[in-house]
Parts: sequence; C-alpha cells; structure tokens
Amino acid sequence: MILTVTLNTALDITYRVRSLRPHASHRVTQVLERPGGKGVNVARVLAALGHEATATGFAGGTTGRVLRDHLADVPGVTDALVPIGGATRRTVAVVDERTGDTTQFNEPGPQIAPAEWSAFQDRYAQLLGGASAVALSGSLPPGVPVGAYAGLIRAARAHGVPVLLDSGGEPLRRGVAARPDIIKPNADELAELTGSHEPSRATQDARRRGAHAVVASLGPEGLLAATPEGRWHAAPPARVHGNPTGAGDSAVAALLSGLVERLPWPARLARAAALSAATVRAPGAGEFDPGTYEELLTRVAVTGVASAA
Amino acid sequence: MILTVTLNTALDITYRVRSLRPHASHRVTQVLERPGGKGVNVARVLAALGHEATATGFAGGTTGRVLRDHLADVPGVTDALVPIGGATRRTVAVVDERTGDTTQFNEPGPQIAPAEWSAFQDRYAQLLGGASAVALSGSLPPGVPVGAYAGLIRAARAHGVPVLLDSGGEPLRRGVAARPDIIKPNADELAELTGSHEPSRATQDARRRGAHAVVASLGPEGLLAATPEGRWHAAPPARVHGNPTGAGDSAVAALLSGLVERLPWPARLARAAALSAATVRAPGAGEFDPGTYEELLTRVAVTGVASAA
Repeated sequence: MILTVTLNTALDITYRVRSLRPHASHRVTQVLERPGGKGVNVARVLAALGHEATATGFAGGTTGRVLRDHLADVPGVTDALVPIGGATRRTVAVVDERTGDTTQFNEPGPQIAPAEWSAFQDRYAQLLGGASAVALSGSLPPGVPVGAYAGLIRAARAHGVPVLLDSGGEPLRRGVAARPDIIKPNADELAELTGSHEPSRATQDARRRGAHAVVASLGPEGLLAATPEGRWHAAPPARVHGNPTGAGDSAVAALLSGLVERLPWPARLARAAALSAATVRAPGAGEFDPGTYEELLTRVAVTGVASAA
Repeated sequence: MILTVTLNTALDITYRVRSLRPHASHRVTQVLERPGGKGVNVARVLAALGHEATATGFAGGTTGRVLRDHLADVPGVTDALVPIGGATRRTVAVVDERTGDTTQFNEPGPQIAPAEWSAFQDRYAQLLGGASAVALSGSLPPGVPVGAYAGLIRAARAHGVPVLLDSGGEPLRRGVAARPDIIKPNADELAELTGSHEPSRATQDARRRGAHAVVASLGPEGLLAATPEGRWHAAPPARVHGNPTGAGDSAVAALLSGLVERLPWPARLARAAALSAATVRAPGAGEFDPGTYEELLTRVAVTGVASAA
C-alpha cells in the first residue's frame, strides 16, 4: 500500500461558464464535485495505475462528509482520514469554455486543534507499518506546526518507508532538512527554496540541503531530476495544451509507483512526464486518459544532463 | 404571517479576495454562507422589520440540509420548505476587496419531479390559510411548469390573499396574466415584458397586461410605481454606493409589510426606497443596517408622476 498524506484536503468544485467576465453574473452550465487536496489526487492516480493507495489527513464538517462520500466511490483508494471539528475547505475552479482557462478560488483550511494533530500523528505511525512508500502533499492548515512535514519525514525514515515531499515555502524548507527521499518542487517552489532561478543549479543545491533526489516540474519544459544515480531531463515530444491542474500530483503518483516497482530513474521520469502531459490534455481537471498516457509513454525523451557545478 | 415562496432556493456563498484576476489562483480571505434564493431573502428582511414570515419552496441534498440549518438560526422565519430528491443549488459571489465589485456564479437548480411539484402545491394551499400576503420570488428550477406562478397567483386570489410577483421572462409574462396584486420587475424585466425601454410607459403597459400595481426597481434611480391610486417616483436623497445584491428583495419585503400594515402607497414606496438603499450600503450582501434605514426613511423623496399616455 502507498500512503498519501493530505493535511489540507478540499472538496473540489469545478464550474463551467460560457465566458468569465469580472463583475458580471454567470449561469454555471456544469457543476463537477470531487474529493481533492494534492495527496487525495495522488491516491486517485495511484489507484488508476493499479496500486493500492490509502489517503490520510483531515476531514470534517458537512464538506468533509461529502468529500468522504465521494472518496468511497473511488476504487482502489482506502479512506483513512482523521475526523476534525472544523469544516474541510472548498475550492472552486471556474473554467471559461471560450478560452479553456481556469480561475481558481481556494478557501482557507480549517483550524486544527492540538489534540487533532496528535491523533493524526498516531494514525500516521500506525499506517506507516503497512506502507511501501509515503507522499506528503500540499499546504498546511492553520494549527498544524510549520515543521510538521519534517516530523512526518523522520517518522517515515524511522519505519524504513521511502518518503516524497511535495510542498512549498517554509514547510518545504524545514522538510528538506529532515532528508526526504524525493522532493518534487515546481519552478517557483524550487527558486524560493534555493534562491536560484536556474533550475539545473537549483536542483543540485536542493540536494545539498538534504533531499536525496530532486525532481523539479517545469511546466511545459517537463521534468528536471537530480538523483544519487544521475541527472536527467524528461519532456513530452511536443508542447501539450490544456488544464495543468493536477499535473504535479500525477507526476508524484508516477514517481512513487516507479519507486515501489523498483524502476530505474529514467523509466520513473518517463512515466512522470507522460502522466503529467496526459493529465494536462484531459478535459477534466486532475483526470488523465489512459490511452493518451500509454501513447505518450513511448514518445517521452529522457536525456542525461551534465553537472552544472 | 407573510408567506414567501422560493422555488429555486440556494445556499449563498460569498468569497472575499484581495483582487479578482481572471485565470489566476486566489486565496479566499473570508467565507460567508447563508440561506438564499430571493424569497428566503424577503423572509429574512420581513422578520427584521418585525413581521412573522414563513418561507416555503424546495430544499434537498446536502446543500439543502445546510440551508435549513442556517435558516433555523434566523429568528422570526418559519421553515416550511418541501423536501426534494435533488440537491439545492449553490451560488458563489466573489467580492473584490480592492474595487468592492462582485462577480457572481449561479449553479443551475435541481430537477423537480412531478410528485414534488404536486406536494408543493398542496403545502402552499395549506399555508395560504394562515397568510396575510404572499411573495412569489425568483426563477423556476427545471421540472416546474413555466406557468407555475400563474397557478400560484390564482390560488392566492381564491383564498383572498394579496400576492406580489417578482420574477422575469416567461414566468413573469404568464404570471401577470393571472392578475397579481403587485409585480416588482427591474428595468430589464419590465422592458422584456412590455417591449418598452421607457419605464413610465412600460409600468402603465404592465398594468394593462393584468398587474394591479407595478413597482419597477430602477437601480440608482429608485422606484417607479403605477397603482390604481396613483403614480409615484421614490428615490433616496443621493446616489448610494455599495453592493446591490438583495436590494430588490428588500424592496419586496418593504412593499408587503406596508401592504399588510395598510400604509398608503407613498409610505410603502418610501419604505421600499429607504430599505433598498440601506441594503446597497450595507457591507454584507442582502443585509441592511437598521440605523441607515431609519435615517434614509426620513429623507426619501416620493413625488407624484403625471400619466405618460
């Protein structure tokens, strides 16, 4: 079982409108609702890849109940969310049918009480016993200490479970110092962590700060990886147009599935680049088309990169 | 008791964001949630004016349950909503803190089954027995016949209960033919009903089509009324800036409260203009400040209008 942690889960709502006009009133033509938060997305993609996934984190309130109802409908994903007194946040993504662009509104997360954070840590330690790998994904809700990911990484390492961290800002900085197996920052997160806007230099710098392997997601430019076994760049054959929501979560699912399947790094990166691109190209945010994925998988270019330093 | 009918109730969600930028991601700084739909707003304002109000219409699903939970917290409003299998829609209003402007997203309403529409009509007939006046407000959800308001107006008239209709399009057109006591169209609804963009002419034309009295809400220009007792224009002393959401519903509550209190038309119109303006000026959508209302009430100008025809 692969464990995914989403401390700031969300009920993701997608609205389609004919054309977004600020300060106007819009008739929503289609409403989609699904369980969300980055680690929940990772679990869903892992299940679609044929891996058993367990999703933990927090859920509460009416929105939390709806999220768990939806999660129960996803085959291959086990709900191990910890109940809280506050209400799970919503996100609203407004898709402009004319341009295909998305405008996103993210509610703040609920306040987590100290007893709830303790209950989560107990549950996490239990779940680690049956986990082959862990993904820690996304932002921290209010009340969770900023060093939370560092503690969860140390616990995973104590259990001998490889751990991937996908976050930003101070939670990422503190997490890196706890020596995670993999981090997957995007370009902005990597630059904020290292102070360098040059991805080749920055991925190597992030390794020096404590991450065993760094896989930076560079949007249309694909993935840049710095690992103990070498450095590679992976990119789809041509620029893919569509909705990038969830592409990073698909890359995380690909990297973790490749890790537990003991694939060599270039094969993991090919999978991650193909799955990301297939997610961008799919009509629904965070979905991917298996046929597109299989086709792209044979066409991704993974090339070795010389050291920058 | 004054009865308000909201066939297309909504769970109204308001998001504050620092600045709305299309195609960007926004952190929501404040989330407000309240029971909505135009007739529910009318009931809330009636209760604030000291009248007992009963809100009927449809509610269902998780959103309907949340709406009813919120409604239970409003003193003076009795919940007489009829349960349905579908889910009550949401509306999301995004307030730009920089400009104060609002961008609105309205989900489509749930499908109403024929048996649910029948159950509503039975409940409505029972409620009419205890009602001193009725407001029929807003759009019709899918499954409710377009002539619905015409039937509800005939039933009210058969019970001797005065009825106000606040809707648009074909439901308004058919409703007017059933001879409601008052209609309260806005400028667009009035123009669509009569084919005339000249409000003075259009209000008189709407009376000829069947409405006993017509009170057109003309935004910053105030209210224009054509009644069996005369014609008046009512406007606040100066242009009021703020959020116009709910201003029309406040005007409806003022007109109905004035009707059951047997106020003369000029006093009803002064109340409606003052309450509308106090609603625009209040920080929260659909709220009004009692102090602002009392102050404006003494300063609204109600002037007689000569016949246009």
